[in-house]
Amino acid sequence: MLMHGEEAGPVPPGLKDVAARAGVSIKTVSNVVNGYVHVAPDTRARVQQAIDALGYKPNVAARQLRSGRSGVIALAVPELQSPYFAELAGRIVHAAERRSWTVLIDQTDGHADRERNLVAGLRRHAIDGLIFSPLALAGEELARGGDETPMVLLGERVWHGPADHVAIDNTAAAADATRHLCASGRRRIAAIGAQDSPSAVTAHQRLAGYRAALAEAGLPVDPALVAEVEMFHRADGAAAMARLLDGPGPPDAVFCFNDLLALGAIRTLLDRGRTVPGDVAVIGFDDIEDGRFSTPTLSTIAPDLGRIAELAVDLLAERLGEGATPAAAPRELRVSHRLVARESTLGR
Amino acid sequence: MLMHGEEAGPVPPGLKDVAARAGVSIKTVSNVVNGYVHVAPDTRARVQQAIDALGYKPNVAARQLRSGRSGVIALAVPELQSPYFAELAGRIVHAAERRSWTVLIDQTDGHADRERNLVAGLRRHAIDGLIFSPLALAGEELARGGDETPMVLLGERVWHGPADHVAIDNTAAAADATRHLCASGRRRIAAIGAQDSPSAVTAHQRLAGYRAALAEAGLPVDPALVAEVEMFHRADGAAAMARLLDGPGPPDAVFCFNDLLALGAIRTLLDRGRTVPGDVAVIGFDDIEDGRFSTPTLSTIAPDLGRIAELAVDLLAERLGEGATPAAAPRELRVSHRLVARESTLGR
Repeated sequence: MLMHGEEAGPVPPGLKDVAARAGVSIKTVSNVVNGYVHVAPDTRARVQQAIDALGYKPNVAARQLRSGRSGVIALAVPELQSPYFAELAGRIVHAAERRSWTVLIDQTDGHADRERNLVAGLRRHAIDGLIFSPLALAGEELARGGDETPMVLLGERVWHGPADHVAIDNTAAAADATRHLCASGRRRIAAIGAQDSPSAVTAHQRLAGYRAALAEAGLPVDPALVAEVEMFHRADGAAAMARLLDGPGPPDAVFCFNDLLALGAIRTLLDRGRTVPGDVAVIGFDDIEDGRFSTPTLSTIAPDLGRIAELAVDLLAERLGEGATPAAAPRELRVSHRLVARESTLGR
Repeated sequence: MLMHGEEAGPVPPGLKDVAARAGVSIKTVSNVVNGYVHVAPDTRARVQQAIDALGYKPNVAARQLRSGRSGVIALAVPELQSPYFAELAGRIVHAAERRSWTVLIDQTDGHADRERNLVAGLRRHAIDGLIFSPLALAGEELARGGDETPMVLLGERVWHGPADHVAIDNTAAAADATRHLCASGRRRIAAIGAQDSPSAVTAHQRLAGYRAALAEAGLPVDPALVAEVEMFHRADGAAAMARLLDGPGPPDAVFCFNDLLALGAIRTLLDRGRTVPGDVAVIGFDDIEDGRFSTPTLSTIAPDLGRIAELAVDLLAERLGEGATPAAAPRELRVSHRLVARESTLGR
């Protein structure tokens, strides 16, 4: 009998059909569909091909009932209006979709109390796991809560922290950016993005990388060339650049701690009649799309965002999988980055 | 007796304390907290002030049990990597937060089958309502499904459609943008953003506004000046601009159907040695932040995004409120827009 609103149609393909086509057991198909990681990569690929070919759709509701899982994970980022986090969110949605997970995206605005609520599990009543890019919290604060929901941390805030963790080598990347400016013969290299707060780990690490590269090049660190910002937004970069230009000895190059700061800084430079990179070379960090079409195009550090998203989802899947041992020690995975040199340092 | 993990602390403020401080009944506080719309604005403001002052936190879980609601709504947008949708999402998260709603953001990539799944309710098992900005679906396709979950539609795709609907007057806004170019004496005004697909309602309406404004100014519509694009991304705008410049009679102005297309078009113009707006004036649509810091800054149409977010959340709250009549006719609310003239049309 059909329920009201249902349609009689061809019988949809099932696990059995996928298994037959892929030449594996039903259990193996189930393992792939449920996102367990202990499946050999080529077996997983064969099963995925069969799933795609047959148009198999796992019965999500039934699976959730069996597993006691909701099929929903949360992703918490400081702000979606930052292109870096928007792109990261898009990539995590895609990575999660391959496991038929729905991603609940939660924007914390980097408020410490909202991040604390997240970690304490207040908002996690119906989700299987959390991928969290903290802004206000760092270190042991993230360990509070005692919630058993698996969590994967993104970003550089919590080495040796309480959970699985994926990040690039932030200090090394900042040094690479600064070295690129040194190599072009610049001698008064400013930094835009320093932050005072002890929890501003990103800013501290990028500043450390900047300092290390200057020392390596035999250049002094001039405190007048280090500009603080409140946020990593375009307006902050524009204002900081204006302060540097009005300062005692203006810079001939600037390393900005993200691309938005750099785009704001470039706008101020051009407004003040300076050429980029002629008078002042500028490099950012993140490789957001804006910098590929701006005038001048923006030199930057490109983290491997696709890899970060994949690893975050894989780590969560592993913690959620059959046979997972929640007590297993947190893992720390480093993702690579690369320097992308464009017009803002090379010229046209 | 305390449960394991609970802490004994000061008693948190309750509904009664908020009511006393605001000088209203407990029922009124409850109505505000639960997002019912039939509360006078100044009463609502007074209650909100008392809530903020006392740091009152509604017991979300208990409320959900009583109401049978999850406290979670979904927002479905085509892509978070588009700054327009990222900003819209951020604003809706903030508007929903005032009602203690968590927003599940779902990225559809504008795929028709994923949008159909949404409308059919496949993914809505644990959510109270849906705010949906469709890209692939239009008109009656959105009415399918028979799911009772309240839905609010954003954007211009479905006038007289099956659900509450919030949008700007897209055709009028496009005409305003084109008129601005006509008023500066431009005569060969191109359009970038036309799309062939019958479901590309945004593109069709913006093209209609462009045509209407040209007719009004006594200018012919030259099909060679209308450039089609696959997506509304920077790369599409850059490629379309190159085709126009290589065409029989290059334009002296361009109306781009969004800001990303315009930023891509400007990059091509500058690459080809053209000045903006000297040789070619450019106007976009959306007022994303990128255009406020680009060189030149970008003239554009600014929809009242804050108002769109508030109205969407308010309409959903009304459908979810006590005494709501689900059968009430869908409402269509127009939000205002304004022209923002910057360097890309005015010069510096």
